[in-house]
Amino acid sequence: MSHAQSMAHAAATAGAMSLNPTSDQPTIADYLIRRLQDYGIGHVFGIPGDYVLSFYNVLEASPLEIVGCCREDSAGFAADAYARVHGMGAVCVTYCVGGFSLCNSIAGAFAETSPVVVITGSPGLAEREKNPPLHHRVGDFDTQRQVFAKICAATTVLDDPPTAAREIDRVLATAARQKRPVYIEIPRDMVGANPGHLPATPIAPPQSDPDTLSEAADEAKRMISASEKPVIVAGVEIHRYGLQSELLALAERSGIPITTMMLGKSVIRETHPLYAGMYEGHVGSEATSHFVEDSDCVILLGTFRTDIDRFVYGGLLEADKCVLATNDVVQIRHHHYHDVRLDDFIRELTRLGPTPPRRKPPTDVPARQPAPPLQIQPDAPISVSRMITRLNELLDEKSIVIADVGDSMFAATDLVIREQTEFLSSAFYTSMGFSVPAAIGAQTARPDLRPVVIVGDGAFQMTGMELSTAVRRGYNPIVLVLDNRGYGTERLLHPGDHAYNDIQPWNYCQVPALVGGGVGRRVATEGELDAALSEAFADTSQLHLVQVVLPHDEASDVLRRLADNLAPHV
Amino acid sequence: MSHAQSMAHAAATAGAMSLNPTSDQPTIADYLIRRLQDYGIGHVFGIPGDYVLSFYNVLEASPLEIVGCCREDSAGFAADAYARVHGMGAVCVTYCVGGFSLCNSIAGAFAETSPVVVITGSPGLAEREKNPPLHHRVGDFDTQRQVFAKICAATTVLDDPPTAAREIDRVLATAARQKRPVYIEIPRDMVGANPGHLPATPIAPPQSDPDTLSEAADEAKRMISASEKPVIVAGVEIHRYGLQSELLALAERSGIPITTMMLGKSVIRETHPLYAGMYEGHVGSEATSHFVEDSDCVILLGTFRTDIDRFVYGGLLEADKCVLATNDVVQIRHHHYHDVRLDDFIRELTRLGPTPPRRKPPTDVPARQPAPPLQIQPDAPISVSRMITRLNELLDEKSIVIADVGDSMFAATDLVIREQTEFLSSAFYTSMGFSVPAAIGAQTARPDLRPVVIVGDGAFQMTGMELSTAVRRGYNPIVLVLDNRGYGTERLLHPGDHAYNDIQPWNYCQVPALVGGGVGRRVATEGELDAALSEAFADTSQLHLVQVVLPHDEASDVLRRLADNLAPHV
Repeated sequence: MSHAQSMAHAAATAGAMSLNPTSDQPTIADYLIRRLQDYGIGHVFGIPGDYVLSFYNVLEASPLEIVGCCREDSAGFAADAYARVHGMGAVCVTYCVGGFSLCNSIAGAFAETSPVVVITGSPGLAEREKNPPLHHRVGDFDTQRQVFAKICAATTVLDDPPTAAREIDRVLATAARQKRPVYIEIPRDMVGANPGHLPATPIAPPQSDPDTLSEAADEAKRMISASEKPVIVAGVEIHRYGLQSELLALAERSGIPITTMMLGKSVIRETHPLYAGMYEGHVGSEATSHFVEDSDCVILLGTFRTDIDRFVYGGLLEADKCVLATNDVVQIRHHHYHDVRLDDFIRELTRLGPTPPRRKPPTDVPARQPAPPLQIQPDAPISVSRMITRLNELLDEKSIVIADVGDSMFAATDLVIREQTEFLSSAFYTSMGFSVPAAIGAQTARPDLRPVVIVGDGAFQMTGMELSTAVRRGYNPIVLVLDNRGYGTERLLHPGDHAYNDIQPWNYCQVPALVGGGVGRRVATEGELDAALSEAFADTSQLHLVQVVLPHDEASDVLRRLADNLAPHV
Repeated sequence: MSHAQSMAHAAATAGAMSLNPTSDQPTIADYLIRRLQDYGIGHVFGIPGDYVLSFYNVLEASPLEIVGCCREDSAGFAADAYARVHGMGAVCVTYCVGGFSLCNSIAGAFAETSPVVVITGSPGLAEREKNPPLHHRVGDFDTQRQVFAKICAATTVLDDPPTAAREIDRVLATAARQKRPVYIEIPRDMVGANPGHLPATPIAPPQSDPDTLSEAADEAKRMISASEKPVIVAGVEIHRYGLQSELLALAERSGIPITTMMLGKSVIRETHPLYAGMYEGHVGSEATSHFVEDSDCVILLGTFRTDIDRFVYGGLLEADKCVLATNDVVQIRHHHYHDVRLDDFIRELTRLGPTPPRRKPPTDVPARQPAPPLQIQPDAPISVSRMITRLNELLDEKSIVIADVGDSMFAATDLVIREQTEFLSSAFYTSMGFSVPAAIGAQTARPDLRPVVIVGDGAFQMTGMELSTAVRRGYNPIVLVLDNRGYGTERLLHPGDHAYNDIQPWNYCQVPALVGGGVGRRVATEGELDAALSEAFADTSQLHLVQVVLPHDEASDVLRRLADNLAPHV
């Protein structure tokens, strides 16, 4: 767990409050801002608009820093990445035109369990009498909230001062506990209202039932101890709940190898002796797939609950040999334990100390087979796989890799994540355009890390201009735009010459000049790529964008494997 | 009514179908595409994605043309503008990541009554067994449809072949009748399914009840004939239902002056002798406001139903002197008539021929006070009002003006719309970023018109890169980017030096070079502006972007008047 995550997590679980209910009389806006700080939030992403200007004025005068973005959806992606790196994030936009522009980012945060607090203004209660046709409005005044109720874990409209503080607490506690986005709407004439009384006690997080926990951990321990070839599959919740150390303690004490999934790629440093590669069913490396599927005891920790369906009902694993623990449920073979927290389960299982035979992870994973230094072929066209090999040589513990959807992500599965290095992607929801705004959010949360963004040209056309905000804030991401003039993944999924997969070619290398800062390079050969990468990694003072011109049909081996598996179904 | 609107309208009301149910056995996708053609749709905007690739393949082989965009929300705005110009529009995107990115555009189409058909793919029914965690998915499989149900007039999932054709008919008929967006979701394994039987008869549009119509028109006729100073306020539904000729017939027969509202600015040519200016309550010109509010019989035709609340309950008009007819209801004084169609009401009222005294429209409206030719002050900084005056000299009947939100729109209220000239804006929903994508949609619908876009820098940063699609398709819009380094309207609404209203300065004039076509100019004086405008209007061969550098606090008179009225409430 990072320091920042640890802080946010402590605040979330302890419900610590910085307010003294007796000496302090904040407005609703003040109270919300202080509670955001309690959860470790230091920055709010967004775009101002008239229904939220009053709140922006309070924000501006508060210790929270406003990070203005070009577009609301980018602000949402940035807040999501901030939450993934930092523990919780926030985005603040105006009513309807702002809120509805956030839907895709927030749906993605919901799907990938990232706790983003959506704050929105709305027409004042006094303005709503006689049902006037206020601008921005769609349907009735509650329409926006109803939409967000479909993609958030909790929603509230702070339209009642006496309950406002408790509502804020309820919704933020839900975000912290479920690691999902939540929605807080403030009618603009409530910003300065006095919430009356403040909650005397914080909302206590749910606790594990001791007897259930004990029985579940004991059964798991006996099952693991009796196995011959156990393996852990670590999922994204390990990252979201900050349980990396707990995971390692279990694995190291019992000598059980760990595989990760795409969304949880960075939960363990990939040079760890127990690291057994990335497991993605049909898509992952054959060695890791075989290692997991050959196991007689698969311990899935913090994966999405539905992953068991994918692997078990997908025919890859037998339920009889699975232990699945998520923040919702523990499932062993075919029965379920409720009221058991993931962190308690891992800790209790570690304390009990399963004693299976030591199992050696496969050697055929990238981290254990360091490639020989790349011999640059200066005039050769660029290959994605060789580019990844070169990147592997350049990344260090100060890098945070952010991969967009498509071959950017598939190729990045072969990057070796070293200690302390982070990896972010929209690996499950797979929303194109996540990466550049996410780099803004990640560097806001961790100014000591340098984002390395790998993004396809199609995805870059969606949100790449958000580099404007990187320049404005003096950030220094390295952005590799994989330029194959179209939607390359789709070309492979539906072979044939479909014009709808082609896009307008941009001179991506001109973006830094257009937005007013940084260096842009266009490279078409391995030699040019190597020079641009070397220049970018050597110059930490500014943004570097490298337009990587690829042959039309270039794709990584991982993508080709995926396409072979998926194409029959698309 | 334009020819295109006339065609779409005829198909919508007659329910004409191009299919012969007995000789023809289309798939669900075929049937949908043919019905879209029946409604006059020739183009589908969108972005492909895996869950909708099968449908894209059918689209590609059909007579419909796919217009690929950079972003889904831009595709939505383009389809909206296409619908406003052409009668109905369509946008096609993939599941969730595509759909949720459309929410803001479609909410805007709903708020401003623009019939856009949203077509989306989704996981195949066969894939949904066992509830697997398919990528892109949020909540359950129906979540996306539930969200769109909040911002569409009708939704359907074509998951049942025997009812699919009737469902398509029902949803498209609703779009045509209500002029609102609708949602059609096709699970990807249903694209090629056979709908079994086709509807034998089209869905009949609702008809007016003859007795109610007769009584309503008669009462309105008597009230108007008895008045001294009648006036018509023409709203956006006149445009959406293609009733421009019917409106003119009524006004000309009875000699009643016509005012328009912002959203319906182009429903009458502003040089018409009966044109009385734009009425926007506190915001409009004083002469027109006085003319309307001094009237003893205000006939609101095709305005939003809620506009009566705005003017009547807002205290500007007395209900006792109002006749309001919309497609939902006719209201005279304090009572209502249902089951009366707007077109029938206008035609019947015209037939009855009210005979009030002839009333002369005010002379103090821009169209009746042609400004003297602008004397260019070559070295003066640029003023928005003088820029509008110059534009008024350059616009002709081949121009279609598209104004974005903010001072772009307010200043544009002073543009004189000549015969056949169109005007588009998001004047009620006021979503920033509407204009550039809308120009793509408008020019797709009307290749004979040249879009003239007026857009602020904040709005341009949201969607301006969609000019890429203009270049790709060989369009020639003229785009004026009003560059005041921030959100100028908000600066006026909340005076004070708020950093959150500042944005990163871009070199907007470099956009054409970046996206691969067109001319970009940066101008900071009136002389430079005049030269760039002259060059742009003279060269119809390509896109022209003019970066209009404004003094920090420059604003049109209209915006200043609005800000004075609104600032106390924000």
